[in-house]
Amino acid sequence: MPRSLAHKLIGAHLVEGEMVPGREIALAIDQTLTQDATGTLVMQELEALGLDRARTETSVQYVDHNLLQTDQKNAEDHRFLRSACRRYGLWFSKAGNGVSHPTHMQRFGVPGASMVGSDSHTCAAGCMGMLAIGVGGLEVAMAIAGRPLRIRMPEVWGVRLTGSLRPWVSAKDVILEMLRRHGVSGGVHRIIEYHGPGLAGLAAMDRHVIANMGAELGATTTVFPSDSAVWEFLRAEGRERDFTVLTADDGAEYDVEETIDLSEVEPLIAQPSAPDKVVPVREVAGTAIGQVVIGSSANPGLRDFAIAAAMVRGRQADPAVSFDVNPTSREILADLTRMGATFDLISAGARIHQAGCMGCIGMGQAPAVGQNSLRTFPRNFPGRSGTREDSVWLCSPETAAASALMGVITDPRDLGIEYPEPALPEKASVNTAMLEPPLPEEQALQVELLKGTNVSALPEFDELPDRLELPVLLKAGDDVSTDEISPAGARALPLRSNIPALAEFSFAGVDSDYPQRARDVVGGHAVVGGDNYGQGSSREHAAIAPRYLGLRVVLARSFARIHWQNLSNFGIVPLEFDDPGDYDRIEVGDVLELSDLRRELSDNEITIRDTSRDLVIRARHRLSPRQVEAVLAGGVIPLIATRP
Amino acid sequence: MPRSLAHKLIGAHLVEGEMVPGREIALAIDQTLTQDATGTLVMQELEALGLDRARTETSVQYVDHNLLQTDQKNAEDHRFLRSACRRYGLWFSKAGNGVSHPTHMQRFGVPGASMVGSDSHTCAAGCMGMLAIGVGGLEVAMAIAGRPLRIRMPEVWGVRLTGSLRPWVSAKDVILEMLRRHGVSGGVHRIIEYHGPGLAGLAAMDRHVIANMGAELGATTTVFPSDSAVWEFLRAEGRERDFTVLTADDGAEYDVEETIDLSEVEPLIAQPSAPDKVVPVREVAGTAIGQVVIGSSANPGLRDFAIAAAMVRGRQADPAVSFDVNPTSREILADLTRMGATFDLISAGARIHQAGCMGCIGMGQAPAVGQNSLRTFPRNFPGRSGTREDSVWLCSPETAAASALMGVITDPRDLGIEYPEPALPEKASVNTAMLEPPLPEEQALQVELLKGTNVSALPEFDELPDRLELPVLLKAGDDVSTDEISPAGARALPLRSNIPALAEFSFAGVDSDYPQRARDVVGGHAVVGGDNYGQGSSREHAAIAPRYLGLRVVLARSFARIHWQNLSNFGIVPLEFDDPGDYDRIEVGDVLELSDLRRELSDNEITIRDTSRDLVIRARHRLSPRQVEAVLAGGVIPLIATRP
Repeated sequence: MPRSLAHKLIGAHLVEGEMVPGREIALAIDQTLTQDATGTLVMQELEALGLDRARTETSVQYVDHNLLQTDQKNAEDHRFLRSACRRYGLWFSKAGNGVSHPTHMQRFGVPGASMVGSDSHTCAAGCMGMLAIGVGGLEVAMAIAGRPLRIRMPEVWGVRLTGSLRPWVSAKDVILEMLRRHGVSGGVHRIIEYHGPGLAGLAAMDRHVIANMGAELGATTTVFPSDSAVWEFLRAEGRERDFTVLTADDGAEYDVEETIDLSEVEPLIAQPSAPDKVVPVREVAGTAIGQVVIGSSANPGLRDFAIAAAMVRGRQADPAVSFDVNPTSREILADLTRMGATFDLISAGARIHQAGCMGCIGMGQAPAVGQNSLRTFPRNFPGRSGTREDSVWLCSPETAAASALMGVITDPRDLGIEYPEPALPEKASVNTAMLEPPLPEEQALQVELLKGTNVSALPEFDELPDRLELPVLLKAGDDVSTDEISPAGARALPLRSNIPALAEFSFAGVDSDYPQRARDVVGGHAVVGGDNYGQGSSREHAAIAPRYLGLRVVLARSFARIHWQNLSNFGIVPLEFDDPGDYDRIEVGDVLELSDLRRELSDNEITIRDTSRDLVIRARHRLSPRQVEAVLAGGVIPLIATRP
Repeated sequence: MPRSLAHKLIGAHLVEGEMVPGREIALAIDQTLTQDATGTLVMQELEALGLDRARTETSVQYVDHNLLQTDQKNAEDHRFLRSACRRYGLWFSKAGNGVSHPTHMQRFGVPGASMVGSDSHTCAAGCMGMLAIGVGGLEVAMAIAGRPLRIRMPEVWGVRLTGSLRPWVSAKDVILEMLRRHGVSGGVHRIIEYHGPGLAGLAAMDRHVIANMGAELGATTTVFPSDSAVWEFLRAEGRERDFTVLTADDGAEYDVEETIDLSEVEPLIAQPSAPDKVVPVREVAGTAIGQVVIGSSANPGLRDFAIAAAMVRGRQADPAVSFDVNPTSREILADLTRMGATFDLISAGARIHQAGCMGCIGMGQAPAVGQNSLRTFPRNFPGRSGTREDSVWLCSPETAAASALMGVITDPRDLGIEYPEPALPEKASVNTAMLEPPLPEEQALQVELLKGTNVSALPEFDELPDRLELPVLLKAGDDVSTDEISPAGARALPLRSNIPALAEFSFAGVDSDYPQRARDVVGGHAVVGGDNYGQGSSREHAAIAPRYLGLRVVLARSFARIHWQNLSNFGIVPLEFDDPGDYDRIEVGDVLELSDLRRELSDNEITIRDTSRDLVIRARHRLSPRQVEAVLAGGVIPLIATRP
C-alpha cells in the first residue's frame, strides 16, 4: 500500500505499538532541542533522573528566549545551561547565536531524523522531512536519557498544494489560510502532511514558516518531503552530505484530505488576539498602527528579512511607527549584513535588535495600550506581547513592511512598487564558533553544575490520594493558552528556573488572585476548563507551577496535546467531561469530591460529586496505563524514583 | 589680558553677574537636550509652567534610555514625548535614532553655542567648543522657556596635553588617567579646558570621550577648542557651514594648571565599583571575565567600534564571554555596516543590540553575580548594571576587545597583533528621517499631549515650614551617587514619569526599607550625607521622589553640583556641616530640630539641635538668595506659580 511520508517517518522510528490513530505508540528519538526558558528545568530533570550522559545522536541547548538580562538572573541561567551541557554531553548554542528552530535546521537538521523539543514550534523542522514534535521538558529529558517518546498515533491530514503564490503573497499567508479555514484546534491529534505540485515554488525556509505554525493549529506536527528544495538549503549550509530524498509514495492516502490552490491565496492577517481570527488584509487596510515587528521563528529565513529590506530600501518608516527587526540568528544577520540588507533596514529607520526570540516571547518591544502592533510572529494571545491590553496582529513580512512605510495596515499589492525578488547568497555565512560541541565523556563527568542564585531545586510532589475534596478555584473558557496559565514576558520568564517564584504568576492572564486563593486552601484544588485547554507554548511550567500551588485535577471539555501531557507528567489528573454540558453547571467555589481514584482511573469511569450543588458529573481521561501510573505516583519523576 | 576659551564662552553668554569663581552668574542658553528618562518630567514641567512654545534656538528631545519595552510604559512615554515635542516646538529624535550626546553633536552641535541638558553627560558637547552643562530637568524646562541658567562661576582648570598617544592607547585612557589622578570629586566647581599641542592627535569624537567623562570628575563642564579636528568632523557630517574657529588666546592663564604627556599614558582600567579606582590594565591582567560590552556615550564614535571590529576580525570571542555591542546611533551603525565592521563583529560572536544607551543605564545586559564585566561605559557605580552585586570595570574599546578574545582582562599591547587603524568614511551616513522638526507654531498650538497610563501628574509640594522636627532616616557615606538614591535599570527606569510609583525605589541602593520608614513618619524627615553627595546622573527624580516621601533637609559634608541644584529646585534644603566632624556625631534615628528657618537661611547661619543627643550642629548653605526663595516656597515651580 502506498504510504504517506508521515507513516514512513513514524514507521522508521516505531519501537512499540501500532500505527492506528488513537493508539499509544513509542518512537525512538534521534535528536533533542531545548531552549533556555524551558531548558533550565530539563537540565534539573536530567540531574533528578541521575543521567550520566546524553544517549541521543544530537541534543542541543539553545539560548534564545531570556536575552534581555534586566538583572543577574538571565546571565546566571546561561552559565548554568552551559555547565549542564558540558556535564551531560550536549551541544550549547550561546546567547546571540540565534533562535533554536532556524538554527537547528541550519546546523543539525537531517531529513528522516526524529526529534523532540521543549518548545511548541519544534515541529518547524518538519519542513525538511524530519519527524519533529514539541513536547514538555520532561519528555525531552527522558529522550535525552534514551527513552522513547510515547504519544497517541495521530491521524494524517494530507494537504495538497497546487498552483503557485502570486507576487506579494508568501508562506505566512498559506499558514494563515489554514488557520482561517480550520481554527486553532483544527489540527489536534493530526499530523499535517503537505504534498503536491505547489511545493515546487516553496523553498525550505518557506516551508519552515508553514510547519512552524502548524503548532497554532494544534497539530502534533507537520511534515514536508525532503526534495530538491531541501537539497538546495543544505547545500547553502555546506551540508549536502546530510541530504536524503524522502517523499510520500505516489497515490498515498490520507485520513483527511484537503487542497489549497496557492494562486488563490491573498495577503492575510490575523486580528487581535488569536492566530485564527484571519481576514484578508484588504478588509482591514487603513487601520492606524504604532508598531511593526519583523522576526521570530514564524518568519525566520533570510528571505523574510531580505524582502522587507528590499521593500523599504530608500524609503522611510512612518514617523508614528516603531519599526522593529528581530534577526533570528547570527548567521542570518551576517548574511543580511553582507548583502546590504541590514544597511537598508537601518537606513529606513529600523531598530535592529539582538538575534533571538525577543518580542515574540514578550521580551521587549511591548506596544502602547491602544496601539495596533503588526508582527510576523506565530502568536498573538492576549498579553503575550508584554502589554496586558495589547492589540497584536499577525501577518507576512510583505504586509508588515508595507504597513511600516504607510503607518496604516496596507495590502502590499497597493504599495505601487514592483515585487522585489532579492538575490540570496548561494552560500550562507556559516560560522559554528558560538556552538560548543559536547565534551568528551571523561572530561564531562568532572564538570560541576554552576547553579546561580536563580536556580531553585525542583519541587517534590506527593502521590495522588485515593480520595480528594477539591474546591474549584478557577473556571477558564475555551482555547486558554499556556501564556495565560504561566505567562512569558520580561517579568515572569527570568523566573523559569525558580518554580516557587514563578508560581506567583500562575493564571495571571485569567485571574491574578489565583495564587493567593490556592495558597489559602489546604489539600489541593481543581480548575475547570473549556475546549482546547492549554493550547500554545510547550512550557511545562504551566503544569508545575499550579501543581506547586496545589492543583490536583483539571476538568475540561478537551485538552491541547502538550499541556495535557505535561499535566500527567507532573501528577495532575486531566479529566474530560462525559457530557460537555456539565461545564456550565459547575461554578467557581464549588467543592468537587472524587473517591476511589485508583480504581476509577484504572477503569476510566470517574464520578465526581459537586457537593455544593448535589450534582454528579461523569468524566473520563485519555491517559495510557503508563500515564495513569505516573499520575498516581505524583508524576513521572517520583514514579521513576520508586521504580528505576 | 589673554583669555581662556572657557572665559570667552561664558563671556559671550553672560547676562548677569561677574566671572569671579564662586559668584552666581546667569547665562543665556541657545540649545537644550533632553533624553526620555528625564524628558517626560521636563515636558510635564513645561506644561506646569504654561509654556506656549520653546524660546531656544534648538531644543531636542531624544529617546535613548527606555528602549527595552518590557511592558506598555516605554512605548506610551515615547508617544507622550513625541506629542509634547509637537506641542512645544521641539525636535523629536525617535527611538532607534541614537544616544543623545553623539547624535546631538552630529546633527546640532555648533561651536560657540551654549546648551543645557537633563543628562549629566551633556558636557560631552564641549568637545566641539560648546559650553554645554548637565543640569536637572527643571533647569532645562526653564531654559526652554527662555530663562537664563544660573550657576556659580566655576574655576577654570587648564589641562595642557603634550605628546601623542602610543598604539593601543586611546581617549578613554586619557580620561581614566584624569580620574586616577584626581578622583570623582576632583573637578567639582571647575570647568576643565584642554589645550596644548597634544590636541592635534585627537579627533572630535576622541575629545567627546574625554569631555563626556568630565562628569565623572564632578566638573561643571569640559571645553575643547573648535579647530581643524572639529572642522573635519563637521565636514563628514555635511555641516561645514556651522564651523567657526574658537580657541583660547595665546598665553591664557588658568585658575589651576596641569599637564598630561599623552605619550606616557598607558592602557588603564577602573576597577569595581567607582570610576576613579583606576589602575594600569597590566596590573589586573589575567582576571577572568564573563562579559564585555562596547558602546555608550563614553565611547560613542565610529572609530571606537571600528577599532574593536578590526581587532576581532577573523577571531572569536571566548566561549565563556558574552560579547555585547551597543551601537550608539543609527548613523554610526549604518557607517559600521557600510564599512564591513558590523559583519566582522557579528562574525566574532558579538550580540548586536539596538542603538541606544542600553546596558550603560542598566537596560539589559546585566551580568551574573560574581562575574567580571568589562565595559567602555562612563560609570560603574554599584548596581547600575542591573545586578545588585555586580563587578563592573571601565576601559577602552581596545582593552575591551582584547579581553573579549582572551576571556581574561588583557592589556591590548599583549595581544600580539599589529595596531589596526581602520579607515573611516569621509562622509557619514547622514539620515535625518528619524528626527522630526518642530511643527509650525499655529499647528503646534492645536496639538494635544498624549499622556498614556504611565504618566502621572507632577506632585505638588508645600512651602517650607519655619520650624522642623525631622528624624534622620538615613546616613549615607561619601560619593553616594544618584544611581543609589533613585536607581535606573529595567525595573525603575520605566517609572520615570510616575513619581508615586518611582518613589518606592528611593535609596534602593543604600537602604531598601527607606520608603516604608519615610511613609511612617508624619511631618517630614532628614538624610545625612558624606562628601560629594549625589554624584553622577542628573536625574531630578533623585530629589523629587524622596521629596514626595517627605524629605525636607539633606545635611552633608559636600554636594555634587547637579543634585544640589535639584534639591533646592524641589524645595529640599541642602545644608553643609560647618564642622565636617559633626557627621560622625549624628546617627540614624536622631531627631533634628531646626527653627526660625526663614531668617537663618537668609543669614546663612543655621543651627540644628540634635534633640536625641543634646547636640548643637552648625551648618550653612551655598544657595543664592533666589534659591533660598525657591526652597522656602517649596521649590521653583510653586515659586513661579505664586510670582509669575
